[in-house]
Amino acid sequence: MPSLDIRDYRFTKKGSFHIREFDTAGTNGFHDKKEARSRLTENVAKMAGLQDRFYAQDREALLLILQAMDSAGKDGAVKHVMSGLNPQGVKVVSFKQPSAEELDHDYLWRVHKALPGRGEIGIFNRSYYEEVLVSKVHNLPFSQKLPARCLDDKLWARRYRQLRNYEEYLTENGITVVKLFLHISREEQRRRFLDRIDDETKNWKFSAADIAERAHWDKYMDAYEQAVNATASPSAPWYVVPADKKWFARLLISEIVIHHLRKLDPQYPVVGEEQKKSLQECRRQLAEDGQS
Amino acid sequence: MPSLDIRDYRFTKKGSFHIREFDTAGTNGFHDKKEARSRLTENVAKMAGLQDRFYAQDREALLLILQAMDSAGKDGAVKHVMSGLNPQGVKVVSFKQPSAEELDHDYLWRVHKALPGRGEIGIFNRSYYEEVLVSKVHNLPFSQKLPARCLDDKLWARRYRQLRNYEEYLTENGITVVKLFLHISREEQRRRFLDRIDDETKNWKFSAADIAERAHWDKYMDAYEQAVNATASPSAPWYVVPADKKWFARLLISEIVIHHLRKLDPQYPVVGEEQKKSLQECRRQLAEDGQS
Repeated sequence: MPSLDIRDYRFTKKGSFHIREFDTAGTNGFHDKKEARSRLTENVAKMAGLQDRFYAQDREALLLILQAMDSAGKDGAVKHVMSGLNPQGVKVVSFKQPSAEELDHDYLWRVHKALPGRGEIGIFNRSYYEEVLVSKVHNLPFSQKLPARCLDDKLWARRYRQLRNYEEYLTENGITVVKLFLHISREEQRRRFLDRIDDETKNWKFSAADIAERAHWDKYMDAYEQAVNATASPSAPWYVVPADKKWFARLLISEIVIHHLRKLDPQYPVVGEEQKKSLQECRRQLAEDGQS
Repeated sequence: MPSLDIRDYRFTKKGSFHIREFDTAGTNGFHDKKEARSRLTENVAKMAGLQDRFYAQDREALLLILQAMDSAGKDGAVKHVMSGLNPQGVKVVSFKQPSAEELDHDYLWRVHKALPGRGEIGIFNRSYYEEVLVSKVHNLPFSQKLPARCLDDKLWARRYRQLRNYEEYLTENGITVVKLFLHISREEQRRRFLDRIDDETKNWKFSAADIAERAHWDKYMDAYEQAVNATASPSAPWYVVPADKKWFARLLISEIVIHHLRKLDPQYPVVGEEQKKSLQECRRQLAEDGQS
């Protein structure tokens, strides 16, 4: 079986990601679904074991950010990679179009509420990165209720800095941020949209608005490239996941999650001498209780 | 009547505040309560007028942060300075000891949820500054559920930076941050505590724990001095309010709030030509309605 090094897909510094040179169909030497499947199954089991300790330790939090063009496989990745996890310690949040109440606040307001707590794995299905993606492609802030002083051509540069600072804050306060861009080709999206139209069981996943967004493909690619380059850092890296082959994307995502959970080295809490004594005392009482 | 320049109490850069040289009994030439009262009454009316436009404009938010030692007059300031405001546009949040759920998250989690929305004036009665005040005096993070990697002697320097970055983010996203430190002397606190013990109608305001905190007075003064110096900036200034005389503190606070509301220059939204036409059309329909 081919070896798989997630570092090949990791971006940690400015200017290192060139979106148009990236092979969205890459599979790193894996040939087909079958070859990847057994390894994914193993990985799901590994993740569950790590998560159990992570949850018991109750100190660190892990935030996985999933960003992608429509149909790239975010929902499928959550379903097929994360289904082995104990849902008590997992919090999936999907960020849709902001509500009126959300637009009445700063753009991180709805995000911060949704952050994972200690011991939890948070999954953002779309995220605050939409504020420099769809917002940038459509110039949304300029038609939102922001003060005029906030609206100038430095807005995007400020947002990139704000996001870097925000992720630095999160990292320093026990929340590890791992960002995944599931990257598909324009042609692969075309095929998947056709499939969603032709297959009646998938019609619910499609909306005519998806075609309108697709027309902005090049602008989106620019926005993704800029966002990744402006916010990639060693402590909050971006991974660009070739997503034309769903089975490979899922395998790679599982490897990335395992890597970061392992790096945090979760351990079951160690019971101190005092507590051990107390446990033995409880044991004694329970034992006596049974005899009376 | 003496003139009052709030700039005399404003701190906008590092290292400029020397807490032990600050006159907590200062009244800037005002002689007594009576002299200040009429001006405070006028100010309350001015604030209400400004707030009406601020709320209607629905673009900017103002966050007033009140920090102080016990009994310095935070609650009284809210009551006597802010009572003329329309409560629909005011949001007072008191930060008490964090709950278990709050401690399970990063320290800005409970804060961010509580931020004012557009058109609102938010008042934090205590705030995230407690994370570098009471937390610093008692070394609280070191007994909280933080990952070990977050706990080293650089923690406070990181927190100051995090707060600077956070306030920069808020400012850039339409939330003006104004920070008020109501500063009383140790002797004045002693008198007020005695009063709270002797006057039965004030007993509810006193707890024996207040005496324990008072014992750390010098440490608190150091923590306040450092916090002000590390986080004062032109866009998110600190005001140190002499608070031994309640009537002067309240007057000064009202001047500060007015200054910052005026600076944001709130205006009733202007109705465009199209909307004017629509209003006239509605007018016509209503007029006809009455004649049928």
